[in-house]
Amino acid sequence: MRISVINETSAADRNCDIIAALQDTGHEIINAGMTKCGAQPELSYIHTGLMSAILLNANTADFVVGGCGTGQGFLNSVMQYPGVFCGLISSPLDAWLFMQINGGNCISLGLNQGYGWAGEVNLKFIFEKLFSVERGAGYPAHRKEPQRISRNILQQVNAATHRSMTEIIAALPDDVVHPVITYPGFFELMESWAKTDPAILAAVDKRRRSKR
Amino acid sequence: MRISVINETSAADRNCDIIAALQDTGHEIINAGMTKCGAQPELSYIHTGLMSAILLNANTADFVVGGCGTGQGFLNSVMQYPGVFCGLISSPLDAWLFMQINGGNCISLGLNQGYGWAGEVNLKFIFEKLFSVERGAGYPAHRKEPQRISRNILQQVNAATHRSMTEIIAALPDDVVHPVITYPGFFELMESWAKTDPAILAAVDKRRRSKR
Amino acid sequence: MRISVINETSAADRNCDIIAALQDTGHEIINAGMTKCGAQPELSYIHTGLMSAILLNANTADFVVGGCGTGQGFLNSVMQYPGVFCGLISSPLDAWLFMQINGGNCISLGLNQGYGWAGEVNLKFIFEKLFSVERGAGYPAHRKEPQRISRNILQQVNAATHRSMTEIIAALPDDVVHPVITYPGFFELMESWAKTDPAILAAVDKRRRSKR
Amino acid sequence: MRISVINETSAADRNCDIIAALQDTGHEIINAGMTKCGAQPELSYIHTGLMSAILLNANTADFVVGGCGTGQGFLNSVMQYPGVFCGLISSPLDAWLFMQINGGNCISLGLNQGYGWAGEVNLKFIFEKLFSVERGAGYPAHRKEPQRISRNILQQVNAATHRSMTEIIAALPDDVVHPVITYPGFFELMESWAKTDPAILAAVDKRRRSKR
Repeated sequence: MRISVINETSAADRNCDIIAALQDTGHEIINAGMTKCGAQPELSYIHTGLMSAILLNANTADFVVGGCGTGQGFLNSVMQYPGVFCGLISSPLDAWLFMQINGGNCISLGLNQGYGWAGEVNLKFIFEKLFSVERGAGYPAHRKEPQRISRNILQQVNAATHRSMTEIIAALPDDVVHPVITYPGFFELMESWAKTDPAILAAVDKRRRSKR
Repeated sequence: MRISVINETSAADRNCDIIAALQDTGHEIINAGMTKCGAQPELSYIHTGLMSAILLNANTADFVVGGCGTGQGFLNSVMQYPGVFCGLISSPLDAWLFMQINGGNCISLGLNQGYGWAGEVNLKFIFEKLFSVERGAGYPAHRKEPQRISRNILQQVNAATHRSMTEIIAALPDDVVHPVITYPGFFELMESWAKTDPAILAAVDKRRRSKR
Repeated sequence: MRISVINETSAADRNCDIIAALQDTGHEIINAGMTKCGAQPELSYIHTGLMSAILLNANTADFVVGGCGTGQGFLNSVMQYPGVFCGLISSPLDAWLFMQINGGNCISLGLNQGYGWAGEVNLKFIFEKLFSVERGAGYPAHRKEPQRISRNILQQVNAATHRSMTEIIAALPDDVVHPVITYPGFFELMESWAKTDPAILAAVDKRRRSKR
Repeated sequence: MRISVINETSAADRNCDIIAALQDTGHEIINAGMTKCGAQPELSYIHTGLMSAILLNANTADFVVGGCGTGQGFLNSVMQYPGVFCGLISSPLDAWLFMQINGGNCISLGLNQGYGWAGEVNLKFIFEKLFSVERGAGYPAHRKEPQRISRNILQQVNAATHRSMTEIIAALPDDVVHPVITYPGFFELMESWAKTDPAILAAVDKRRRSKR
């Protein structure tokens, strides 16, 4: 899987812990957001939510690991968009259940609240369990079928309630879109990946050019 | 405040714990969802998510307390809609921080996972802290202003990414909408509240009639 | 390692979860306490604490997994005795840190509080991490030496503050000792294990005979 | 109540958080241990365990709030002594249950593990609940009587398994006892409190003089 790690400013100092904890998972890791608290240019959870949604909807990433101080801000930000299903994960058990039951493509981590000593070890345990199970396998076994149905309906709801990602990219205010699409390496990341959805890439490119 | 409690089927046996835990908060409590696991008619988290979104968008409720087995399902369901900002809450500290920082209008509770002995006491502590602080007051103090700005931008994003609630009510499939709008007491609840938004009430009523 | 699982009455229904969760650890598992809530004869945490201490001090078991509703009762009970170092464990990270830093020979689990859905999976994750590290290895690396010194001094303190286990077995009141030493299988377990300390076995045997 | 706060070196930087969190409880607070990580003279959890046990057994304090990085080290240290009943507390619910069910006179806090953002607020919530209930009141109501009996038997066990505090003070090695009894303010604290047990005060004084 192609996993993108996307940190906002308040918890960007945890970025190296996240990257280290993902090393042994065998997945391709893309570090697309901030790597140090307060560095410039700065991304808030508003920006990392949009960045995550673009990468997921464009197929540039298969999965996003995000978060913020408590995890609730990024969660609420990324869930504004179509095609994103995100869990708030603080323990290995959370991870293990979310992946099987909800089969999401994104998690939000609380990276300041409750993040103390050996927090980086807990991240390792979380990822280990997150990626140890089949996405959407269902749990417990006898709930497999109703859970599958619920996930499918949720995707239909998701399509009915949201504008399309290209419409959204065109419609959002400058102060939301520009910090994301001009973030160092972001456009190159999209462009360099053959599977990136051309329509979304074009929508991003159009906003980039209109800025100049 | 007018708080609606909305339980889906898998954790509906916790409904009485939630209602009891809210008694001392001094708020008006509306019990709009299920009250017993597996009772008929049944609501899944798909349905309780929509029910919550309708009540919040129509101003029939100011705040929704929902949840499911892990809390992640209801969270992902209710976050599909405009006008909803929801936290996943498992401790009093979560509650206290979410209300101040994110200023949401909805919480999702994990009502089977981690819900053991004295779980109902933990709910009481959660609500006590949730409603002890000013919504959107910000925390810590020096982050008040950037947090306020983020909440405001999030509302703009929310408006740009979603269809309107009336469009959504008209567009969603029957198996999502009907169990909600025909749920015993639901339409009466909307109708009997003077502040209920007439456009949303009309959209609900139209779907009700089209079913017959 | 020879691990004894010892449950008291209030959480004895979790016994099968614990036994199942230990299956894949590769250790020898001895189920010495209760296996069903409220069965007869009943053991309170007072009894399971003593039972654990006898087995550990007699070398009949290398490690004890105990617990109670919150875990605090068994913890306080088993810690009354010499030769016991016990952690209260509720997450994989707790387990991983306790084994390395404190190098104990006993854990207490909260088996009603916080024990909900998939609690048995959490147990599995806890044991996996508990037995994945070297006992007393120290963590983090640079604290290895001071932690080793603290563990050694704690053992000296332990010897200085407690009566000997044989004295204790002789001195404790009947209602504490008898339910333990007459518990089905308990004496046979001690007797059948070649490494069982003869002095402690004799002390137990003497109390057994004096009862008749 | 007279509550003594006693921090060891690794988490001494949390001392001010603990003191602040106790301000509103209405109890008398004695800050007897370290107040800054790595300051001199240094106390390990071996020392703070003994210090706590002396103050509790001598009636110089009614309750001790201690802890360490994970809480497990102080817990295991303080539980070596007679007359100490200690809970490992990480949430308000833990506190509320421990005080009622176990009726202890000491708590151990994990002050590095899991201690992140707003950790000081969590402490406040913990103390609020810890001191909101009657010690040993029992919970739930129908378990009041068996819990009372268990606490009483535990005290008998405690007396049977330990040497007396004066014997212990006389017997412990110098490197355990001296850092405690010569810690700035410690002896004065004991001496200045009229209710301090004269036998324990004398035992402490004897060790002090023997050092010179």
